[in-house]
Amino acid sequence: MASNIVYITRKEHFNAAHRLHRADWTDEQNETVFGRCANKNWHGHNFDLYVTVKGTPNPDTGFLFDLKKLKVLIINEVTDHLDHKNLNLDVPFLEGVLPSIENIAMAIWARLEPHINSDTCSLHSVKLYETPNNYVEYFG
Amino acid sequence: MASNIVYITRKEHFNAAHRLHRADWTDEQNETVFGRCANKNWHGHNFDLYVTVKGTPNPDTGFLFDLKKLKVLIINEVTDHLDHKNLNLDVPFLEGVLPSIENIAMAIWARLEPHINSDTCSLHSVKLYETPNNYVEYFG
Amino acid sequence: MASNIVYITRKEHFNAAHRLHRADWTDEQNETVFGRCANKNWHGHNFDLYVTVKGTPNPDTGFLFDLKKLKVLIINEVTDHLDHKNLNLDVPFLEGVLPSIENIAMAIWARLEPHINSDTCSLHSVKLYETPNNYVEYFG
Amino acid sequence: MASNIVYITRKEHFNAAHRLHRADWTDEQNETVFGRCANKNWHGHNFDLYVTVKGTPNPDTGFLFDLKKLKVLIINEVTDHLDHKNLNLDVPFLEGVLPSIENIAMAIWARLEPHINSDTCSLHSVKLYETPNNYVEYFG
Amino acid sequence: MASNIVYITRKEHFNAAHRLHRADWTDEQNETVFGRCANKNWHGHNFDLYVTVKGTPNPDTGFLFDLKKLKVLIINEVTDHLDHKNLNLDVPFLEGVLPSIENIAMAIWARLEPHINSDTCSLHSVKLYETPNNYVEYFG
Amino acid sequence: MASNIVYITRKEHFNAAHRLHRADWTDEQNETVFGRCANKNWHGHNFDLYVTVKGTPNPDTGFLFDLKKLKVLIINEVTDHLDHKNLNLDVPFLEGVLPSIENIAMAIWARLEPHINSDTCSLHSVKLYETPNNYVEYFG
Repeated sequence: MASNIVYITRKEHFNAAHRLHRADWTDEQNETVFGRCANKNWHGHNFDLYVTVKGTPNPDTGFLFDLKKLKVLIINEVTDHLDHKNLNLDVPFLEGVLPSIENIAMAIWARLEPHINSDTCSLHSVKLYETPNNYVEYFG
Repeated sequence: MASNIVYITRKEHFNAAHRLHRADWTDEQNETVFGRCANKNWHGHNFDLYVTVKGTPNPDTGFLFDLKKLKVLIINEVTDHLDHKNLNLDVPFLEGVLPSIENIAMAIWARLEPHINSDTCSLHSVKLYETPNNYVEYFG
Repeated sequence: MASNIVYITRKEHFNAAHRLHRADWTDEQNETVFGRCANKNWHGHNFDLYVTVKGTPNPDTGFLFDLKKLKVLIINEVTDHLDHKNLNLDVPFLEGVLPSIENIAMAIWARLEPHINSDTCSLHSVKLYETPNNYVEYFG
Repeated sequence: MASNIVYITRKEHFNAAHRLHRADWTDEQNETVFGRCANKNWHGHNFDLYVTVKGTPNPDTGFLFDLKKLKVLIINEVTDHLDHKNLNLDVPFLEGVLPSIENIAMAIWARLEPHINSDTCSLHSVKLYETPNNYVEYFG
Repeated sequence: MASNIVYITRKEHFNAAHRLHRADWTDEQNETVFGRCANKNWHGHNFDLYVTVKGTPNPDTGFLFDLKKLKVLIINEVTDHLDHKNLNLDVPFLEGVLPSIENIAMAIWARLEPHINSDTCSLHSVKLYETPNNYVEYFG
Repeated sequence: MASNIVYITRKEHFNAAHRLHRADWTDEQNETVFGRCANKNWHGHNFDLYVTVKGTPNPDTGFLFDLKKLKVLIINEVTDHLDHKNLNLDVPFLEGVLPSIENIAMAIWARLEPHINSDTCSLHSVKLYETPNNYVEYFG
């Protein structure tokens, strides 16, 4: 017999500047490892963020997790802090983090996970597109 | 050594009206829980449906499941019953189902699963987009 | 020498139910002309709306028409009245209008045009997608 | 009888940081007019650029303008100067230009137009997407 | 006062093989002009075709041109002759045509134009995508 | 506590001709099983290829696998051998393979896997789109 576990996903986005760069490396080292992404005057992207919650739909409402609430949660906890910001300079929860998409996705997971955690559901994955050709996925 | 298990997916779509609403609740309760989705005169979406089959390709044909047959199966069993329909009123296989995307995806799984089941393949997942920003995935 | 006329576009969307149907026709006539779109229990779509303004950028700001204001104008005048609504029953500015995409686009133009009209800019076009495969464009 | 005028388009892209800001305004004025786009630490986008050439196909080759050459021209003259750059600080051909998409599109036109100009073809338009929801088009 | 001229578009697609090559040229000439597109064993694309009709909606139906009929017309006159075909060898209406997208678009126009021509509407444009990055548009 | 396993994906593409056909079958058998895909003069597609690597980001760089290197690897090992080619005739690593998307995906895995294999990462999946409506995924 089939289970009643379903996965539901909400997409949000943010537009931000960043730079891949280590202060403890020379410019040559940064250029060698990070290439154009090390540009000292920054560059930026339209980031697309997909957040997936796993769980059992409530038989009364048919909802696993109310998408209106998921949208508000992602905006309040994540995208409002990142949109039109510099990911190296402006974001408290990324302080000290080298903002590769791998590291950003893990930091977003840590922001959201405590809020999506009940008897019937939990955070399943965070998927982050930097461009239509490059993305990461993190499952905790 | 690598296995010979492959996953193949076909996308179809349907355009339908629906409403999130319980007859045993007051208008206020429906409005509180379902918000704009409770609108008594309905609203609608272009739904995109992805059906994934898992299995071993036939060495003679290279086919895990003939995509022409998968297309016809999805149309005959699912989308032809949903396209340009009201999901609350017009669909026998959704009778008594509150048509949240969670519940619709599970009902679509139940329609397809008996037809995709052989020695070499089985239904793997049903993914249903309500909008480009909201979707669910069900794995049985 | 090049002109300084530029065209700027903002995309918004709304999800709605509708039906193509004339009360003064028999069911057979409606079915013959409108096919599945005549379904008496409605169907629906995710509509995408592109609004284009034509004009001369302000030399002080670089803006032809502030996109934040264009977004708010489209939401206030148009999409907030259409989203999660029934286009035949719920929308005062579509009263008496058979809601084909041709007619909806012309009605949206009439809503927006008085608000986008100055010495330096004017409404250029309204483009409305009913599905990714079907759209109309209206230029006034 | 039909003409032999055809329009051909090539899409390229670049990822860049920018900021909308005037040095001769106070922070309050910049904030009032440009909102989040004035953020002093920059933000960024994945820009999509569509360049359209108008003309008559060469009867020997069927080509109005060789798309391989159009690609190289756009990269050499435009996107290689903008990709992974800061549009306010790093781009000689945008020096002194407030980098709104209106102004960037006009500057890109000025870069390309001298190179697409022969007896049989000319530059028709430059279309620049800042996000999937916002774009400008410039026709010279 | 606003006009009642509207533009309506239908998208269809076809998957085909082709090759850019002249029999009266040497292999070197073909390679120099057409590059990889001259490969003697062919290559192929998923072509997307947008057909736009211009006209006045019928006041009784709200329809400028019935999209169901436009779809059938495009399939019968165009895409059914091109889909899963070799554009150099298999298509009578492309015989003797070097199948660049410029030439294919003009040939598609010639197929459709006689069928979309009444007191109230006419063919406006044919837009043909060879890839998401390359397309042509023809207006007759 | 959360793990540090992340999945990173790079998208590339190639345009190719192919044909589904067995030389040891009659034309009728080929037509019955492969339908339009058996067309003796070939057909073609724009194939989209997604390659996913699984692993632990390097704490010094934030990189699980450098996306610039992943791009070059996919181009050198895979897409440069397939782009503007005939998949039945021109590709040494597909010799003797019936080029269904199932079989192509498995062959691409075999090309890439030896190059993505270290203490900290391994090839996770190859996802191949033949059209926007049809794709396969292979996990080794």
